[in-house]
Amino acid sequence: MVYNTSQGIVPGKINVHLVAHTHDDVGWLKTVDQYYVGSNNSIQGACVQNVLDSLIPALLADKNRKFIYVEQAFFQRWWRDQSEDMKKTVEMLVNSGQLEFINGGMCMHDEAATHYIDMIDQTTLGHRFIKEEFNVIPRIGWQIDPFGHSAVQAYLLGAEVGFDALYFARIDYQDRAKRRDEKKLEVIWQGSKSRGSSSQIFTGAFYAGNYEPPTGFYFEVNDDSPIVQDDINLFDYNVEERVNDFVAAALSQANVTRSNHIMWTMGTDFKYQYAETWFRNMDKLIHYVNRDGRVNAFYSTPSIYTDAKYALNESWPLKLDDYFPYADRINAYWTGYFTSRPTIKGYVRMMSGYYLAARQLELFRGRNKSGPTTDSLADALAIAQHHDAVTGTEKQHVANDYAKRLSIGYKECPLLNISYCPATEVDLSLGKKIAVIVYNSLGWKRTSVVRIPVINENVTVTDSTGKVILSQLLPIVNASIAMRKFHATAYMGESPSASPMYWLAFTAVVPPLGFSTYVISSSKSSASIKPISYTFDGSQNGAIQIGPGDLKLIYSGNDGKLTQYINSRSSVNISMEQSYSYYAGDDGSSDLINFQIPLTVFRGPLFDEVHQMINSWIYQITRVYKEKEHAEVEFIVGPIPIDDGIGKEIVTQIKTTIGNNKTFYTDSNGRDFLERIRDYRADWDLQVNQPIAGNYYPINLGIYMKDENTEFSVLVDRSVGGSSIADGEVEIMLHRRLLNDDGRGVDEALNETVCVLDKCSGLTVQGKYYLRFDPLGEGSKWRRSFGQEIYSPFLLAFMEQDDTWTNFPVPTFSAMDPSYSLPDNVAIITLQELEDGTVLLRLAHLYEVGEDKDLSVMATVELKRVFPNKKINGIKETSLSANQEREEMEKKRLSWKVEGSSTKQDTDLRGGPVDPVKLVVELAPMEIRTFIINFNSNLVKYRWVHQRLCAVPAGSMGKYMMFISVVEGRNIG
Amino acid sequence: MVYNTSQGIVPGKINVHLVAHTHDDVGWLKTVDQYYVGSNNSIQGACVQNVLDSLIPALLADKNRKFIYVEQAFFQRWWRDQSEDMKKTVEMLVNSGQLEFINGGMCMHDEAATHYIDMIDQTTLGHRFIKEEFNVIPRIGWQIDPFGHSAVQAYLLGAEVGFDALYFARIDYQDRAKRRDEKKLEVIWQGSKSRGSSSQIFTGAFYAGNYEPPTGFYFEVNDDSPIVQDDINLFDYNVEERVNDFVAAALSQANVTRSNHIMWTMGTDFKYQYAETWFRNMDKLIHYVNRDGRVNAFYSTPSIYTDAKYALNESWPLKLDDYFPYADRINAYWTGYFTSRPTIKGYVRMMSGYYLAARQLELFRGRNKSGPTTDSLADALAIAQHHDAVTGTEKQHVANDYAKRLSIGYKECPLLNISYCPATEVDLSLGKKIAVIVYNSLGWKRTSVVRIPVINENVTVTDSTGKVILSQLLPIVNASIAMRKFHATAYMGESPSASPMYWLAFTAVVPPLGFSTYVISSSKSSASIKPISYTFDGSQNGAIQIGPGDLKLIYSGNDGKLTQYINSRSSVNISMEQSYSYYAGDDGSSDLINFQIPLTVFRGPLFDEVHQMINSWIYQITRVYKEKEHAEVEFIVGPIPIDDGIGKEIVTQIKTTIGNNKTFYTDSNGRDFLERIRDYRADWDLQVNQPIAGNYYPINLGIYMKDENTEFSVLVDRSVGGSSIADGEVEIMLHRRLLNDDGRGVDEALNETVCVLDKCSGLTVQGKYYLRFDPLGEGSKWRRSFGQEIYSPFLLAFMEQDDTWTNFPVPTFSAMDPSYSLPDNVAIITLQELEDGTVLLRLAHLYEVGEDKDLSVMATVELKRVFPNKKINGIKETSLSANQEREEMEKKRLSWKVEGSSTKQDTDLRGGPVDPVKLVVELAPMEIRTFIINFNSNLVKYRWVHQRLCAVPAGSMGKYMMFISVVEGRNIG
Repeated sequence: MVYNTSQGIVPGKINVHLVAHTHDDVGWLKTVDQYYVGSNNSIQGACVQNVLDSLIPALLADKNRKFIYVEQAFFQRWWRDQSEDMKKTVEMLVNSGQLEFINGGMCMHDEAATHYIDMIDQTTLGHRFIKEEFNVIPRIGWQIDPFGHSAVQAYLLGAEVGFDALYFARIDYQDRAKRRDEKKLEVIWQGSKSRGSSSQIFTGAFYAGNYEPPTGFYFEVNDDSPIVQDDINLFDYNVEERVNDFVAAALSQANVTRSNHIMWTMGTDFKYQYAETWFRNMDKLIHYVNRDGRVNAFYSTPSIYTDAKYALNESWPLKLDDYFPYADRINAYWTGYFTSRPTIKGYVRMMSGYYLAARQLELFRGRNKSGPTTDSLADALAIAQHHDAVTGTEKQHVANDYAKRLSIGYKECPLLNISYCPATEVDLSLGKKIAVIVYNSLGWKRTSVVRIPVINENVTVTDSTGKVILSQLLPIVNASIAMRKFHATAYMGESPSASPMYWLAFTAVVPPLGFSTYVISSSKSSASIKPISYTFDGSQNGAIQIGPGDLKLIYSGNDGKLTQYINSRSSVNISMEQSYSYYAGDDGSSDLINFQIPLTVFRGPLFDEVHQMINSWIYQITRVYKEKEHAEVEFIVGPIPIDDGIGKEIVTQIKTTIGNNKTFYTDSNGRDFLERIRDYRADWDLQVNQPIAGNYYPINLGIYMKDENTEFSVLVDRSVGGSSIADGEVEIMLHRRLLNDDGRGVDEALNETVCVLDKCSGLTVQGKYYLRFDPLGEGSKWRRSFGQEIYSPFLLAFMEQDDTWTNFPVPTFSAMDPSYSLPDNVAIITLQELEDGTVLLRLAHLYEVGEDKDLSVMATVELKRVFPNKKINGIKETSLSANQEREEMEKKRLSWKVEGSSTKQDTDLRGGPVDPVKLVVELAPMEIRTFIINFNSNLVKYRWVHQRLCAVPAGSMGKYMMFISVVEGRNIG
Repeated sequence: MVYNTSQGIVPGKINVHLVAHTHDDVGWLKTVDQYYVGSNNSIQGACVQNVLDSLIPALLADKNRKFIYVEQAFFQRWWRDQSEDMKKTVEMLVNSGQLEFINGGMCMHDEAATHYIDMIDQTTLGHRFIKEEFNVIPRIGWQIDPFGHSAVQAYLLGAEVGFDALYFARIDYQDRAKRRDEKKLEVIWQGSKSRGSSSQIFTGAFYAGNYEPPTGFYFEVNDDSPIVQDDINLFDYNVEERVNDFVAAALSQANVTRSNHIMWTMGTDFKYQYAETWFRNMDKLIHYVNRDGRVNAFYSTPSIYTDAKYALNESWPLKLDDYFPYADRINAYWTGYFTSRPTIKGYVRMMSGYYLAARQLELFRGRNKSGPTTDSLADALAIAQHHDAVTGTEKQHVANDYAKRLSIGYKECPLLNISYCPATEVDLSLGKKIAVIVYNSLGWKRTSVVRIPVINENVTVTDSTGKVILSQLLPIVNASIAMRKFHATAYMGESPSASPMYWLAFTAVVPPLGFSTYVISSSKSSASIKPISYTFDGSQNGAIQIGPGDLKLIYSGNDGKLTQYINSRSSVNISMEQSYSYYAGDDGSSDLINFQIPLTVFRGPLFDEVHQMINSWIYQITRVYKEKEHAEVEFIVGPIPIDDGIGKEIVTQIKTTIGNNKTFYTDSNGRDFLERIRDYRADWDLQVNQPIAGNYYPINLGIYMKDENTEFSVLVDRSVGGSSIADGEVEIMLHRRLLNDDGRGVDEALNETVCVLDKCSGLTVQGKYYLRFDPLGEGSKWRRSFGQEIYSPFLLAFMEQDDTWTNFPVPTFSAMDPSYSLPDNVAIITLQELEDGTVLLRLAHLYEVGEDKDLSVMATVELKRVFPNKKINGIKETSLSANQEREEMEKKRLSWKVEGSSTKQDTDLRGGPVDPVKLVVELAPMEIRTFIINFNSNLVKYRWVHQRLCAVPAGSMGKYMMFISVVEGRNIG
């Protein structure tokens, strides 16, 4: 029997685009490698190798069959195993359009818990591979599974990578119901108000709210949908019945879809294990359905579908903002995951900033041709962006796998040969010296306090000119030492031999893209200033004032609670409170956690610290720096007790007197801020069933609110969920420990533990947030500039005194022209040597239109001064994912019509072309520009980077306190 | 990565033969077609089309890969769907040995509940297909799943089809343990004492008692055995670990196996859905295991394995008898299935005899080139021999499917156009006449009483010469009428309009391979003799004597029980009792069922009938014929009550005074009788745990026992289970209704019901058994001759009076020379026109060596007189399955050595070659000879068979009483 599958679009009929696809999670219930090779099948029968192995003969069997493949982390694993013959076959299938790469990143990244730089990096990794191996550029965004959709996805990872359309499945059930009623599932989505119409993309939300075939049309091997039985020699012939089923399903979908084109997503998670079973049945359906003639069915792809929609030349409804939060049905908001696994989220964010810096260092040193590179970290980070990775929605053993990959990637980064990193913990009283190299990956000169654990109390810090500088000691509290010991034993199988007594703090001043060196030595005279501590036991009546500089925090001597924020420089004086609560995992009820007395204050010349033991499992340190106008809050939360049989979600709440009138702002993936209004959705009349969960939004950079006078901002060090549940109040969820599975497939409660031998206790999270009040209109400078500093902390490297000491080569360094700095509104978000020796540069304007009166303007970057020692031979501007020239992309990209608007591309929102002689880059607000630069010869390499350094991100505490996370046992020891 | 899979046998090492296979039940939890196309997967994920589709590319990918395929019912379904190109590819794979057909019947038939003629037929069907399409002859018996193994399998379906070896998995767990200890899993099995060494076959029982890979080596798609992960770029590399597992499993098996060759059965039920997953992992195992070097692994087949064993030139232990009964572990005898679904078993047997006769008629008429043939019935019968078909071990809906196929096959038989068959039920008082054509498919002239339901009581029967013959009327009891109505409504959706009042009985005398015609007409004078009935209510003191001829049965007037059997001709006079009991399904306890009074006797000139209502759900009719020396017992059992919550297995027990000393005899598939000794096994010291179930044996022809004077034989009309649980006693299980699943996978209790609308009641079975006493040494004549008559009842066809009546063409006919008859010890078991016009003839000697003083001798058949009207142009003797010339087969077949014996083929056990001029066939005891005969021109066709006839097997009751079975509802109405 030969089936006629050659049918194309038939005008005037309902055209059913059968899109054969598999959705292959880059880790979820199993690890990415387990999914690839098909091991650990007792958890889930899934093997991506089968999918790809079986796909090729199935496509070869009929040239009309088509398939899309998405997740490049899997495809790359498969590709490197293939013979040259097979590669040629696959190239042929790709060229003929039978096999199309869709989305094309390493994974289908999440859109809530991810940072835009990570999203760009992981997409670039996939797109450049596809370009290099196949000379192909993916045209379609395919975010079918992520749990809500971000504005950044629409405009950066959609429009700016050149996609002609974006498709996904999961939008709020109320939203979907309305869009179905009004035939508005397919829209033009404008992701950024700053970027205007250039940030628009045709976007389709799937009819059924999932990415599966209609009921009864699953044809996976051993699936139980009725197959098409068309052999009259056998019993149970069912062609008429199946054709009727098909037509009914098509009519039902066509009924809520604009135009006569509908898409059927023929596949779901890890399907096509034996691809032939799907194609066998789809062949028959196409044949018999078309013979029936009521509707028209054919093999298609999202590209073909998109072109068909475009060819209609219709106008589409406009959609603004984003698709958060997401509820798949009543009382089922997917907002807890904004906070789930906060240690993984913190680790991912730390590695993200580290990866940015490491690539700069790799560029300066020259890419290693054989030894370790940043590639391993790149892969690990890319995979960690998956919507079941950084999200925390994976099984525990899979979370461990992501952490392990990050850990290996981190260790394999060039220069960063951390076999053991005891440098600062040695006993300096023996006369040793330690050089601390402080690297700044930002494009600006930067001044920040650095903290290093030391054993001795008589230490002196000198700068690179040999001058002793002010430094300050702070005790390391017992809780921290105990945590360090516990986690080192749990994760590395060994306990540190020495215990540092103090944090040594000093102010480092570091040029852009450069480092400064500080030397720490033993010295009785002119030593660091020891802390002066006060403990308040609650019997004091008066206020306690904290802060050595302009910013003062006022605490009540009565109960130790924060009461007031006074910034004498900005003249902000505002009442505030801060507290902790939790939501009970079983019923969602809320409980305030009472502070305990006493409160201890450590005062010093650089900053004051307030230590508060909130209860037996929450410890908080608040820091007020002399030179900063924000407060830094470090929290240690855990183990969350569950002996009452109740899971808990821990939040911190900050109450202010700001009258924000239900309105607050949260960032989209760390980039644009979106207005949020409590209990309200712009697109439909919200039926409020869950007033807490339904008002939570993802936060990657920060959350702020304002009234007529004041802005209040909170910035975070990782992805979290947060909201303003009551006027004047900001709430951030810091940690969760739950005892029941949520019934969405993971089949594990989110109950993270740390075990030493067989004894397990709940996971503790340690993190920071930062808060600041500003006069109205002045908050964005801090949010944007300091936000960038949070993302890119100083990188510290250490050298112990040895014979080469006297030859210590370069005490201070900047890759840039010493007299140059990037403007305050621009950051280098990528600077990386590519495999072919060219350099990938991304510059990002950090401000939105109208966000700041000074900085929301066109910015310029002088590339000659960024690279003073190198001659730029050629520069090409590319798409965001660096897989095509920008100009080509703009020419090709489909231009859609929006209902009730005659918008043309508003070209003034972009910087102009880069003159190859002047080499000045203009950036409009929120613009990101991507370049591939060809330098005229091998890059100048910097001798210093050849030194064997031991580097850790600042703020960490050596090897043992690098992160409190879920890294898998002794494997990484 | 290219794996080295080219390794062959390495002498001196343990050679692990990896035999890639799938075991595809021709129906079990799903129907054969559902398994083939992969529908109804919610019951079981299984699709044979996937297996074969995916196998071909997997074999093409590496020429060292090998696979065996077994079940031709599936292969034929697949084959007819393939393109010419694909067929060429498959032929290439078969020719190269990569794909080998094993066993090669349509199904893997059961060996307990099957008749040897059916086994031969279904094997022939498969073997001839393989021969015709591929010119290939299967070499190996592969009965891996059947639940015990029969002597007939060994010598007829093994040695006589030319197999070099036979392999299976299921033997008694005690037997297996001993054989493992003694390295006697592999033996030379001699299946027939009559056939001597020519009935020997090398036989291997599998090491683990199943046909699966060692634990942890299942590589089905989505299976959870650890795959071989050999990609060092991925996590969880496990090559060493898997190689160690492999070596350990191989050593463990080698430890109990003779020689250094072991076989791993790499597959199980419906595996290789995506064949590549198995081969991918086997490739790796072969590569790495051989690199390791401790053992040697390679792709093999049972043929290669057999040749390797043979090449060792060793002697093997001798095994006699059979492998029944089978227990897979303690208290787990698989003997209930000998009786399970007795109506299906009865239907299969009835269709088997019918198929034999129908092929004769088809030959006489000439094979239809376009219209219906016997092929459909052949297929249905073949499939019904499957070890989850006639066995009763399938799900109910699958049992229905088998019945439906038989029903369709029956209706499609040529000549037998039974759209409605009211002939004998019309009202003859209106002056109509009915001609009854009585066909005899045996090679002997035959005289038997025929019974036909009629409405009128004044009827006359005349023979073909117009002479009125003696006939007798018997009332049709109300119970029968009610059953007929109920089943007609349940299965055909309609109730018969007329109710016959009487059975009309007369004696038909029919020539061999021929028919006689009798006419029934209305007539007051010289009408049939009406029954004289007596009812005994238990108040009588004396004995009641039954039987119009030499045989008398004596009943007690007191309690209506049978007490004595007196045959005045043979001078046998013996006391006996007959009773019913049941075993309780839950605990196996036994309960006697008390007879109820009254007992009714109908006396007539041809036979007497004794009607006994045993209880409300058991009715029994005993018949004693004037001209016969056996009693015929018809039982109607059901619905078995379950309102006490207890499942029941109903048995009839016949107690005699014979001192059989634990010894009795049951047939092997209706052929050789094997000696059975209670609580004893010849091959090991039996540990008796279940004294009932463990002594049950399958019965297809009969069971008998004897002492120094007398033999007592019981013959059956279908496959049943039976035993002699106490000396002097024979027990036969007639029906079973159980409320719990036995935990062997079917997941359904054996609780057969019949439903009208939504009202279901337990299934009723109606059947017969026959009993007779003979002086010692004289029983076999009856068992063999009458046994053949039971298998091949008269076939009845009817013609209503119409205009052609006067032209009624041929009143009596024999295909054979009128003066010739086959000898009493020979039966024609196959006479069939093949597709190419040649004729397949099988002649079977019916007696064993020493069984009868007169008949256990060489017999001769004169083919010229069997086919007097045709010239035999050529005759070739073939193997039993008619796929190769006998001479070639004997030359090729491996000749194994038996331990402690220097046996050569004892050639005197066979008839000599057939002289092409004389055309006389000699047959030694138990010999079956198969011939393909070429007649010189088109066969002479017989005009009479062109008439439209309405034929039913004798003993049935028209359309509505044809069978009480589980035919699927209205589909066949």
